[in-house]
Amino acid sequence: MKLALPPTLERLVAHYTRLPGIGRATAQRLALATYTWNDEALAAFADDLAHLHERVHPCPECGNYTEADLCDICASPRRTRDTICVVEQASQIAVFENAGCFTGLYHVLGGRLSPLSGIGPEQLRIAELRRRLESPDVKELILATSPDVEGEATANYLAGIFRRPDLAISRIATGIPAGADVAYADSATLSIAPGGRRRI
Amino acid sequence: MKLALPPTLERLVAHYTRLPGIGRATAQRLALATYTWNDEALAAFADDLAHLHERVHPCPECGNYTEADLCDICASPRRTRDTICVVEQASQIAVFENAGCFTGLYHVLGGRLSPLSGIGPEQLRIAELRRRLESPDVKELILATSPDVEGEATANYLAGIFRRPDLAISRIATGIPAGADVAYADSATLSIAPGGRRRI
Repeated sequence: MKLALPPTLERLVAHYTRLPGIGRATAQRLALATYTWNDEALAAFADDLAHLHERVHPCPECGNYTEADLCDICASPRRTRDTICVVEQASQIAVFENAGCFTGLYHVLGGRLSPLSGIGPEQLRIAELRRRLESPDVKELILATSPDVEGEATANYLAGIFRRPDLAISRIATGIPAGADVAYADSATLSIAPGGRRRI
Repeated sequence: MKLALPPTLERLVAHYTRLPGIGRATAQRLALATYTWNDEALAAFADDLAHLHERVHPCPECGNYTEADLCDICASPRRTRDTICVVEQASQIAVFENAGCFTGLYHVLGGRLSPLSGIGPEQLRIAELRRRLESPDVKELILATSPDVEGEATANYLAGIFRRPDLAISRIATGIPAGADVAYADSATLSIAPGGRRRI
């Protein structure tokens, strides 16, 4: 006999279950923890959820999340404007920024080519990228789609359509992750890593 | 250089971080996942949060969560009414119900005696329990507070004040969890387990 929580708590469990990596048991724990919040905290959470899409929108230039006209990165005077790093999702910009090693601009595709899912070049923000590349300021395009089949296909497609003499097009390195043990590397990675070797 | 998300997304991250077991990295992942929901899903989540406390309240009889006058368990004609199982928190009722072996009623204390935190008998729902025990229908009281120092102290306190000839008072078993290896049992548990042995 499973306990049915009251309907509102059950719906909260259902909302939490929609989140990635949250199963039924965790969602139930989160819903019951939410119940212990005070009304002010609940109202603030609810308000941010209800107005999320009207407050946050994609940056018209790069596709990053922003509440202003341009995102913080596109608007920053400290970013070098000759390099554009192409990522699949806006959430991946945070991953690069947390690493803190890239000072150029980004471009969010909004996905990757996936014929099986009906996602072709028209569904991605490729026309916007073409427009940005018309500027002579841009000297390098770094393709940072994921190194899997669809990500590689997307990178190859972009390299093909944007190839021109004055634009360096590169692909982020594929290899054994820093700190990992070679003994546990998969054969797909190991078959690529020697080809990407660098002299020391 | 850490990426600052737009303020609304940063606040969403902060809300998620308040939940148990959710760190900054997970909260960021959850907030970005939430952004991909459609407006309808966001509005439903926000609505349930904003109205949580006005819809869900403690059952006046046992303290379980409910949206009705009495909770499902107190209102059920199929529950045996001669046994009351005392738990610390309403969320622990779900744990017992998921196990599906107890068919009596519950009583939520709303905590445990904790002099260091200033929680004495007056802060717990003990007066409500006393009132319920005045009914001659109740024949057994099961004390299911956690088997740690404060939980044991709370159980001993309740056993002391409610002791009377026609009421059986028992404590849930302490021992090695089902499925666990004796080799990994802690000494506090092992020192209790032989005392609680049963003949087979």
